[in-house]
Amino acid sequence: MQLKKIRCAVLGLGRQGFRHAENLAYRIPGAELSAVVDTVEERARKIAEDWGIPRWHTEADPIFSDPGIDAVIIATPSDTHPPLVIEAARHNKAIFVEKPLATNLNEADRIIEVVEQTGVFCQVGFMRRFDPAYAHAKERIRRGDIGRPVYFKGVTRDPAAPPEKYVRSSGGIFMDMCIHDFDIARFLMGSEVESVTAHGTVLVNRFMKTIGDIDQALVYLTFASGAAGDVEGYRSAGYGYDIRAEVVGTEGTLVIGSRRHHDVVLLNAKGEARDIVPGFLERFREAYLLEMVDFIRRIQSGQPPAVTVQDGKAALMIAQAATRSFREQKTVKVSEIHGIKN
Amino acid sequence: MQLKKIRCAVLGLGRQGFRHAENLAYRIPGAELSAVVDTVEERARKIAEDWGIPRWHTEADPIFSDPGIDAVIIATPSDTHPPLVIEAARHNKAIFVEKPLATNLNEADRIIEVVEQTGVFCQVGFMRRFDPAYAHAKERIRRGDIGRPVYFKGVTRDPAAPPEKYVRSSGGIFMDMCIHDFDIARFLMGSEVESVTAHGTVLVNRFMKTIGDIDQALVYLTFASGAAGDVEGYRSAGYGYDIRAEVVGTEGTLVIGSRRHHDVVLLNAKGEARDIVPGFLERFREAYLLEMVDFIRRIQSGQPPAVTVQDGKAALMIAQAATRSFREQKTVKVSEIHGIKN
Amino acid sequence: MQLKKIRCAVLGLGRQGFRHAENLAYRIPGAELSAVVDTVEERARKIAEDWGIPRWHTEADPIFSDPGIDAVIIATPSDTHPPLVIEAARHNKAIFVEKPLATNLNEADRIIEVVEQTGVFCQVGFMRRFDPAYAHAKERIRRGDIGRPVYFKGVTRDPAAPPEKYVRSSGGIFMDMCIHDFDIARFLMGSEVESVTAHGTVLVNRFMKTIGDIDQALVYLTFASGAAGDVEGYRSAGYGYDIRAEVVGTEGTLVIGSRRHHDVVLLNAKGEARDIVPGFLERFREAYLLEMVDFIRRIQSGQPPAVTVQDGKAALMIAQAATRSFREQKTVKVSEIHGIKN
Amino acid sequence: MQLKKIRCAVLGLGRQGFRHAENLAYRIPGAELSAVVDTVEERARKIAEDWGIPRWHTEADPIFSDPGIDAVIIATPSDTHPPLVIEAARHNKAIFVEKPLATNLNEADRIIEVVEQTGVFCQVGFMRRFDPAYAHAKERIRRGDIGRPVYFKGVTRDPAAPPEKYVRSSGGIFMDMCIHDFDIARFLMGSEVESVTAHGTVLVNRFMKTIGDIDQALVYLTFASGAAGDVEGYRSAGYGYDIRAEVVGTEGTLVIGSRRHHDVVLLNAKGEARDIVPGFLERFREAYLLEMVDFIRRIQSGQPPAVTVQDGKAALMIAQAATRSFREQKTVKVSEIHGIKN
Repeated sequence: MQLKKIRCAVLGLGRQGFRHAENLAYRIPGAELSAVVDTVEERARKIAEDWGIPRWHTEADPIFSDPGIDAVIIATPSDTHPPLVIEAARHNKAIFVEKPLATNLNEADRIIEVVEQTGVFCQVGFMRRFDPAYAHAKERIRRGDIGRPVYFKGVTRDPAAPPEKYVRSSGGIFMDMCIHDFDIARFLMGSEVESVTAHGTVLVNRFMKTIGDIDQALVYLTFASGAAGDVEGYRSAGYGYDIRAEVVGTEGTLVIGSRRHHDVVLLNAKGEARDIVPGFLERFREAYLLEMVDFIRRIQSGQPPAVTVQDGKAALMIAQAATRSFREQKTVKVSEIHGIKN
Repeated sequence: MQLKKIRCAVLGLGRQGFRHAENLAYRIPGAELSAVVDTVEERARKIAEDWGIPRWHTEADPIFSDPGIDAVIIATPSDTHPPLVIEAARHNKAIFVEKPLATNLNEADRIIEVVEQTGVFCQVGFMRRFDPAYAHAKERIRRGDIGRPVYFKGVTRDPAAPPEKYVRSSGGIFMDMCIHDFDIARFLMGSEVESVTAHGTVLVNRFMKTIGDIDQALVYLTFASGAAGDVEGYRSAGYGYDIRAEVVGTEGTLVIGSRRHHDVVLLNAKGEARDIVPGFLERFREAYLLEMVDFIRRIQSGQPPAVTVQDGKAALMIAQAATRSFREQKTVKVSEIHGIKN
Repeated sequence: MQLKKIRCAVLGLGRQGFRHAENLAYRIPGAELSAVVDTVEERARKIAEDWGIPRWHTEADPIFSDPGIDAVIIATPSDTHPPLVIEAARHNKAIFVEKPLATNLNEADRIIEVVEQTGVFCQVGFMRRFDPAYAHAKERIRRGDIGRPVYFKGVTRDPAAPPEKYVRSSGGIFMDMCIHDFDIARFLMGSEVESVTAHGTVLVNRFMKTIGDIDQALVYLTFASGAAGDVEGYRSAGYGYDIRAEVVGTEGTLVIGSRRHHDVVLLNAKGEARDIVPGFLERFREAYLLEMVDFIRRIQSGQPPAVTVQDGKAALMIAQAATRSFREQKTVKVSEIHGIKN
Repeated sequence: MQLKKIRCAVLGLGRQGFRHAENLAYRIPGAELSAVVDTVEERARKIAEDWGIPRWHTEADPIFSDPGIDAVIIATPSDTHPPLVIEAARHNKAIFVEKPLATNLNEADRIIEVVEQTGVFCQVGFMRRFDPAYAHAKERIRRGDIGRPVYFKGVTRDPAAPPEKYVRSSGGIFMDMCIHDFDIARFLMGSEVESVTAHGTVLVNRFMKTIGDIDQALVYLTFASGAAGDVEGYRSAGYGYDIRAEVVGTEGTLVIGSRRHHDVVLLNAKGEARDIVPGFLERFREAYLLEMVDFIRRIQSGQPPAVTVQDGKAALMIAQAATRSFREQKTVKVSEIHGIKN
């Protein structure tokens, strides 16, 4: 039996929104890209024309009020996530929202409240969970291949720091970069993070000092299960995009991920060489697709989202605890985060 | 500007045809899967219903006569390739035909004649050329990264021998298995194969002896450029699907491909372990998709096919020369193949 | 010209002392193993008899007073290092002393004082510096291959925790295990560690709780140069002996070391597998030999030691700072360590 | 109990003889280097003086007649092996002779006859058998880890062709280079080679054409057990020294060896790079030592040699069969080699 096509609208056509739109338009059984929205008119119009998308807009309202749209994919700047998610929920659209769910806890709580009241489907964009390597590792942990997970080790290294303007509004390295590691740590360890101690410094990007951010971070984590872990992040690795995770268990350890770009090795008088994956769109190309495939399938089949608003809030709380730990130079319990200004 | 959608029909819904159909239905910008054909009615009907394909048939004729079909993908048994290609060409359809183009040279010549007369677009299914590793290697050779290619080394090892029935009608190991290596050798070396000397034996599959086939082959190649090479094939590797190629050049050597299935390594008391890719659909999943993407794009833009009927014939001639070399236990020039019974 | 043979005595014939004795007896041009000493009479006698060593003793005094001994290798329990080094220095013997140089700073200072007064040759046993991988990495950093080093990453994972008795007298995980990483961090980064923040917990070895030790540690480091780093240690990895280091530089990153035991990969239906190096004697077999070769050569040629008592003290101070940081849950400057009880 | 020291003389102080002398002088428990011999007086004298070796000569006779010499290591040019081995055997010395045992079968047979008559210990220098990777692979095959071996795959690639003078007297690529693969194939497969078919050409070293040699070879092998195999050799790989072997079994496959020079990986904007082992002395450094350790131990303990004169003859016969196969362009049975002029 063929399932109903899910008619989608993508809001925000930056690098990630474009990728989602492309996947929905061309590569997802069961999806139909019905509309695209971007505040830059030219961008929305061009994509619509090039791909034959029926409609394009420069604002979200016509999408929400259109009964012909089943689902919205929100890939707009972080600070617009809460109002857009809430409005979409009120119009009963299925929702996919990029990370972070919100930039502060009050908004996250407000979103959760509305999602729970309306009962809409709302999935948060932690795409690493859909990467074949991470997903396979999760499956092996579930099968018991490594016994009880006792230590998590994460590394995220970007090839080059984003421009100052982006960094200023990014929420800082813990919120913008390490949040992926925080989510995947919860996912793989199967336990909540209890406390964080964050360290960091500016290694090469001096402008970050003036805006109170850092380009290198190390976070020590403790989990409710008694496990521990660490997350390293660096903005300026230079050599490419280097994402790793390791889960040490009582019966075995999983080492996840690869820097490899092509399965081609060059041997010459200089030695043995291979290309390194240059950026997140290449490294997580398949994850982005599988994430969207899963989103559509779950809507079609009435299943709950794989990554919930509660997951979005949990990662946000860890990132906030890390930010506070770094600023106050002390260990911070994640449970302390509620009730403080953030 | 949006290009015209290419309306496709897939003929033959076995493992490869199914894969092509799936890719055309869901993952190819610019393609539309308009019809599916299989002699097994149930198979054709089910796919059409499940995926919402407008039409299905148990024979090819209605497809050829339908002006609403722009392109046909022929994934039927090898011996049906020539009549189907010729009929499709006569009806002016763009054609994709799985390897081998034909099982004897007369038919291959007949196909080439018709394709040249009609001027239809006709691409042969050597998907390895579209695998990102092989394509990247080709690009590096083109850029001169390894100087002049002087030696080709190919390995194809299947996890397990096909059933006797399949082997009987396969044309033998050189035609069925090594033909991929022969094509990729021509592609990467940028030179025609001049002579082949084929060796082989039955290592484990005794039934092959009774039908005159072997499960292990080694072919030594010489190229018009003065280069040389070898191709190893084995039907029963047991451990998975192991496809490798190496191009030794005067300034460097490229090692292509990987057995890796997941980017996950398990460390435990038994050592360090990773999964091996189990079969060709997993190993060349991306190649099959990119091959079809390229097919559609070239039709849309009026470019000639990436893999021509002449390429199909060239690989066929090498495979026939290898078969003859093995049987007669002597070196065979590829140019001798014409004019002999094959 | 042949250099004078250095007549050596090995004190302490445990695993490391035995290894040093074996290397000196058989594998070092320029060395002669003249005597072995162990408090266990049987052990000393047996080695002397088996290998044809002229003399054996159950105490060190006869060695010190013997003018026929040029050099002593001290591989006795840690708390005996200071008196033995000092006595050897007073008798003008060249000295090799296993890490740690001492277990507290006062003793380390006393050793340094005596070594400076007597001018004897005294080398500390940080064998990692002699491992071909670490030495090659150091050379590449010296050549400028990675620009300025900005981040150090170290991992030390033992296959299984030592027995409780050993742990009790080990000085704790930072002093006993992480001290190697602290030394190699100084060595590779070319800068002194300024501050440490230590974290850790008991993941699986419950007995450690009762004796105030931990089996898992993570230390964040800052360097005088502005660089940073982290060191992870775990006592019970289970899968083998896993020692890694990484130096991130402004122009490149070096990843050092390997878990590989044999250059043999097994492919079968379970996947691809290789052996993991089981312990430190296997992992650093070559390093132990090269360390001793270097020790002998430097004595012969009148060069200063490659690893000085000052290096021994520096690593000790970092380990003590880490221990204090862990206990007091705060960042500790290494310079604060002097003047406090340790 | 301490075993009697074996007093050794090394004949021929080229690269391999020098390596053996160094190992015997400094790294072998139980060996004593008592004399060195080289036709170049300066070379022999310098080593003797530098290392404090009691005696040096420019000819072998004084060694043979000296009752103070227990064993001779013959590393002179290949054509001198037979007379030196025979003379040493007559004087009842234990013998180590580099490969090839002889350059023709009559001489090999003569050696075997004398060795059998005199009952002297005589070991042939196929050092690959002592390389830890090959030895470990052999052990796993013995344990049954891969079931029954059915296919052998060998590669030997040198970084650069030897000078013309060396090539002229080398016996050709099969005798000089592939002979190592022939020996290791017999060793790992546990079965004799029955037939060979040899192919080859000159890829880049034109001078070889004028002297009837080739720089690239491929040999197809069949074994008495029903197994098969191939051996590839190339003189001018350029990128380093690349030695590989693979044994495909009915229950698993072993991939043996590595190109890796250091366990250090450099990551930078050009990608991921590591050094390739430059030559045989680096690749087989440990094998050369372990081979000599084994030689000495077997003499001391009265065990037969690990690699016999019969092994030396067997490899020679395969190499001669390959040479003949290449020249006559047909498959040659190894058993045919006897009784023909070679």
